[in-house]
Amino acid sequence: MTVSKESSARAAQPVLAIIDRYEPAVMAELHRALDGKTNPPYTLMRYHFGWEDESGRSIEARKGKLLRPALCLLACEALGGDWQAALPAAAALELLHNFTLIHDDVEDASEQRHGRKTIWAVWGEAQAINTGDGMFALAYATLLRLSALGHDSDRVLKSVQMLDAATLLLCEGQHRDLASTNAHRLSTQGYLDMIEGKTAALLATSCGLGAMLGGATDEEVDAISDFGRCTGLAFQIQDDVLGIWGDAGETGKPASDDLIAGKQSYPVVFGLAHCEGAQRDRLVELLAQETRDDNDVAAARKILDDLGVREESERKALEYSDAAIASLDKLGLQTKWRNELARIATFAAQRSA
Amino acid sequence: MTVSKESSARAAQPVLAIIDRYEPAVMAELHRALDGKTNPPYTLMRYHFGWEDESGRSIEARKGKLLRPALCLLACEALGGDWQAALPAAAALELLHNFTLIHDDVEDASEQRHGRKTIWAVWGEAQAINTGDGMFALAYATLLRLSALGHDSDRVLKSVQMLDAATLLLCEGQHRDLASTNAHRLSTQGYLDMIEGKTAALLATSCGLGAMLGGATDEEVDAISDFGRCTGLAFQIQDDVLGIWGDAGETGKPASDDLIAGKQSYPVVFGLAHCEGAQRDRLVELLAQETRDDNDVAAARKILDDLGVREESERKALEYSDAAIASLDKLGLQTKWRNELARIATFAAQRSA
Repeated sequence: MTVSKESSARAAQPVLAIIDRYEPAVMAELHRALDGKTNPPYTLMRYHFGWEDESGRSIEARKGKLLRPALCLLACEALGGDWQAALPAAAALELLHNFTLIHDDVEDASEQRHGRKTIWAVWGEAQAINTGDGMFALAYATLLRLSALGHDSDRVLKSVQMLDAATLLLCEGQHRDLASTNAHRLSTQGYLDMIEGKTAALLATSCGLGAMLGGATDEEVDAISDFGRCTGLAFQIQDDVLGIWGDAGETGKPASDDLIAGKQSYPVVFGLAHCEGAQRDRLVELLAQETRDDNDVAAARKILDDLGVREESERKALEYSDAAIASLDKLGLQTKWRNELARIATFAAQRSA
Repeated sequence: MTVSKESSARAAQPVLAIIDRYEPAVMAELHRALDGKTNPPYTLMRYHFGWEDESGRSIEARKGKLLRPALCLLACEALGGDWQAALPAAAALELLHNFTLIHDDVEDASEQRHGRKTIWAVWGEAQAINTGDGMFALAYATLLRLSALGHDSDRVLKSVQMLDAATLLLCEGQHRDLASTNAHRLSTQGYLDMIEGKTAALLATSCGLGAMLGGATDEEVDAISDFGRCTGLAFQIQDDVLGIWGDAGETGKPASDDLIAGKQSYPVVFGLAHCEGAQRDRLVELLAQETRDDNDVAAARKILDDLGVREESERKALEYSDAAIASLDKLGLQTKWRNELARIATFAAQRSA
């Protein structure tokens, strides 16, 4: 089933409203972490967030997705907590996510992000690595402000432990990703293991951390973490679909971008696992090349289309999205919160950008 | 005053005995953090520590310096604490220090460390960045084991805060270092500000953290942190002296290594600030070149020798070492502990390797 642009737009709207509700407070918390620090590497961090240009002048900020902070604060509210007291955790999750983006850009040699030069493309790899390290440390400094908002030390310490465990899973997943690029030997399961770490772990922790700070029981934290995990898997698989079949006008990336780059993704891994003979040899050959021209990309895409890989990938994303929603059943949430969380899971699998 | 090899060897011996006392327990704590994890990036971390070769086979481990863990545990004991209960903090400090080394090697494009290929030289830059990130996260995971050793949550949280604050200072210092390489515009004060972050901050925190875990008051933590800070400054300036005038047989690096590399160091910064006219133009020219041949290095070293820079640098290192010892006066320590700490400060300024 191919999701129409119309139903995708329908899925996006209420989700953006949820994120918008928290956005000013999350941005204020991020500014609290970074404002007034006039020395580098903090100036480079503000550049990364799109608040300043290369010379440190303020610019009109691009509105970020803030998915992790929103999940954290929504989970906190849904479990009966005061979301405003969880803001340092929400900001810490966003800082942690962005530290990984800064390092990913170096690791992948990506010169652009959201239409702007990446930190390493402006200041060199060494400063980008160091700025990412600084943002990692700043995530913890921000998280520790939970103490000032009334959380006791046991709870703040639990937050540190949860954020740290997620980071270790992220690094394990990132190792797998780096090791598998252009290898074309990854099984479907190997791919899913990788995105468990790379994407799902931090979304699981976003939900679990918010719930824990909202006073949830361990069982409730587990259930909503599983919601976040499955939402993350759906989100990543749909990201992969958009990386091949996305509309450039909506995604801001060229069509078939991931095929051009030879990126490991669910469609590619699934396609390789489900074709054989000459078709498989041809697909491996196309993907294993150092670079691919337009004809190569079109040929690879045609093989994936013939195999029905897009439909299978969208089905898999929806399967995880449904599993996310099912894990909410254990929580006895008020309808309002259940619906909002379910909308985010649906959006993860059906978005077009 | 040039320190003779004999007096330097005399300074080293009792310090090594202090470090040796803690070494088996620190190594056991590091192994506890890393053993049994058969997946990367942990395998790459064990390679970095010299426990395994490139294929993951156990090898005879090189004995590390473990200066930061030793300072932490000695400060804990000196302030009346149980050093064994501070072991997770000691191991966390070593992990944090080594995460910065892994990233430094990428940032400086250093292919060798202690006669072995660096992680990036074996597995590439991307995996090295990610392994460093993982070791950073593992440092916190290790630190949190303090709870299991009887420290209450307030104290463990304070440990997280202290380690994190040191990391932010490290990143600020590292930014200055990267920005100043080959710039030759750093003032003596600018250089000292840089090493406050790069070297002194983590040694200060090693002492302060150990003392805090040993039950010291805030005033005692401040005093022993200042001891660690001044010891760190002495250590770094002597490191710079050894980088130019060190004995290759003892340091394991070629003579004048830092001049060959064009590294920013106290002797170079001080030399540039204290020469003028044609001599200064010549020194700037020699140091600003992309590379230096043997004649260039000899010429630069001769200018520094003529200016008396070695003596001045050794005097500066001793000044900090004396300041470190003076800050112990506020602590009313037992003579045994005062003497051990003083020996470390003296060693920092007088070591020959």
